[in-house]
Amino acid sequence: MAARHGAAALLRFATECARAAGLPEEKARDLAEVLVEGDLMGHDTHGLALLTPYLDSLAAGDMRAEGEPEVVSATPVAETWEGRKLPGPWLVRRAIAAAEKAADIFGLGAVSIARSHHIGCLAAYGPPVAARGRMLLLMCSDPATASVAPWGGTRRIITPNPVAAAWPTPEGPVLIDVSMSITTNGMTGRRRGEGTRFPGQWLLDADGNPTDDPNAFFTEPGGTLLPLGGVDAGHKGFALGLLVEALTSGLSGHGRAEAPTGWGANVFVLVLDPAKFGGAERFLAESGWMARAVHGNPPRPGFDAARLPGDGAMARKAKALAEGVALHPSIPPALEKLAARYGVALPDQVQSGSGS
Amino acid sequence: MAARHGAAALLRFATECARAAGLPEEKARDLAEVLVEGDLMGHDTHGLALLTPYLDSLAAGDMRAEGEPEVVSATPVAETWEGRKLPGPWLVRRAIAAAEKAADIFGLGAVSIARSHHIGCLAAYGPPVAARGRMLLLMCSDPATASVAPWGGTRRIITPNPVAAAWPTPEGPVLIDVSMSITTNGMTGRRRGEGTRFPGQWLLDADGNPTDDPNAFFTEPGGTLLPLGGVDAGHKGFALGLLVEALTSGLSGHGRAEAPTGWGANVFVLVLDPAKFGGAERFLAESGWMARAVHGNPPRPGFDAARLPGDGAMARKAKALAEGVALHPSIPPALEKLAARYGVALPDQVQSGSGS
Repeated sequence: MAARHGAAALLRFATECARAAGLPEEKARDLAEVLVEGDLMGHDTHGLALLTPYLDSLAAGDMRAEGEPEVVSATPVAETWEGRKLPGPWLVRRAIAAAEKAADIFGLGAVSIARSHHIGCLAAYGPPVAARGRMLLLMCSDPATASVAPWGGTRRIITPNPVAAAWPTPEGPVLIDVSMSITTNGMTGRRRGEGTRFPGQWLLDADGNPTDDPNAFFTEPGGTLLPLGGVDAGHKGFALGLLVEALTSGLSGHGRAEAPTGWGANVFVLVLDPAKFGGAERFLAESGWMARAVHGNPPRPGFDAARLPGDGAMARKAKALAEGVALHPSIPPALEKLAARYGVALPDQVQSGSGS
Repeated sequence: MAARHGAAALLRFATECARAAGLPEEKARDLAEVLVEGDLMGHDTHGLALLTPYLDSLAAGDMRAEGEPEVVSATPVAETWEGRKLPGPWLVRRAIAAAEKAADIFGLGAVSIARSHHIGCLAAYGPPVAARGRMLLLMCSDPATASVAPWGGTRRIITPNPVAAAWPTPEGPVLIDVSMSITTNGMTGRRRGEGTRFPGQWLLDADGNPTDDPNAFFTEPGGTLLPLGGVDAGHKGFALGLLVEALTSGLSGHGRAEAPTGWGANVFVLVLDPAKFGGAERFLAESGWMARAVHGNPPRPGFDAARLPGDGAMARKAKALAEGVALHPSIPPALEKLAARYGVALPDQVQSGSGS
């Protein structure tokens, strides 16, 4: 069986590495918690796999360790921050806290962040907000890179631009974290490495012809990721990706017009409190109806059950908390290097007594 | 050539019919303006094609003519209205005005409406908001009907749930109006009538097998519309449809848990003012960069040019304002019946001197 690690041990390890690399306590802890949460949910490209590149970025002076974001503008419900490439998990958690505080009084609150560093797994931010009865919307884009062409076009102009959301139901949170392209840069690179093709025409080659070949993305000039909806309805996915771009780079006032470089993210956080709209009880009545309508829905061929977004992530997290986290095989060797570099003890492995 | 009508003549006609049917002046005008705007933009299923069913609904007592929405809750930036089945275009325009007023001071404002009547073409609401420099998000769902199954399921639980948005660029507005299913009930009925199949597997039959056959939607029990993303990535479209459901029925506190009947809509309106975030000038610099990057993008085979969402609608509107509106052939006979029913003069046709 694969090695398993307890969540607390991984958290201790990641926090100590981040501290040793130069992050202050709170920033180190937020960064570690969000990355470990990604692994707990099974999003293994956006968990501790990011710890090495994050700390490399810190060593290179691209991620900043010290100080606070600069408040560019503020109303009682809407703030805009210059993120100064501070750690994304720390910035986003603080932005969510500020937006929740506003939502608590006004029903909604928003924070726009320019020049955050990378923010990790977007789904990881949702559960605590949903647990407090609120709705979270979280979106990001990276104006320094691009992989998706406009509808009808051939050259890259936007990123996959994820939309994440979370809200409560009486059966647990709904957690959404979906990119507005069919697939992502990471999956395309993985398929290229494996020598496999996509199950459908998920890309355009550089001439704009639909293809299932991941190599078409890596030519010069490069191919593009088709927006959600693909050849048939990709105008919709491109429209939604553009909306994310406007809510992140547009509102924050920083983006592609400035031709930025380096690893970063513009972020939009919106928190809504149902208690200040139609009422918390009525919200839960509706979200609970929906959860039951999903879970009681007769499945179609190939599915054991219909799924509410987040069901898989929450089930993986529960299993990982009970049995330990089975890290992707590429991660333990990376953690060993970090342990050596920073003089931090490796996380203990879980005893395999359970036999699972 | 098809008969063409001037926009002003159509507006006069629709307003007089709505007045004669019993709507007060302001409600009649808003309803007429939003419907004619739909035809101007070329969304001919959501323009004056709706005038007859709207006025039939009014005659049947389902659409309400008199009074105001009830304010269920209010903060300085977030209001929730019981819409009492008042005309959707009138309610939504008032909601946008309230949200803009809040955004003007606070940067954002939201209105949630339970039990609006149908709201027409969502794109029609965008241009004035964008012209005033703001961003509009507008979503709706109808809890009395369903056509989309949960991911992995077979039974209908949500509507196509459109997401609309608008914001300014120096080259004109971006206008988004896209449903979170690949196709819609209306298009499926049209294909069934024509005896044609969809270009891809855009539906599931009642057993959950993908199909391009529109008849599969009309069996008992019925098939379902696949969410945006289709067989490959429809979990994303379903997640987004569910988000619309939470923002509309969830926040408004009225929805499927109450098993409502009749024709209606729950609506979510959010207005953001970039001037209160990173600044209006910086927003336009970013949206302008993007508009130019789209319009200058080398097109792919089968496209004359890459498209910014709304380009088509704004071009059709400009042409219709210059040359008259070429109504869908099904509409003039319906208008003749309304003219006879309400004793209203038919709209003049435009002289065909231009030869177009």
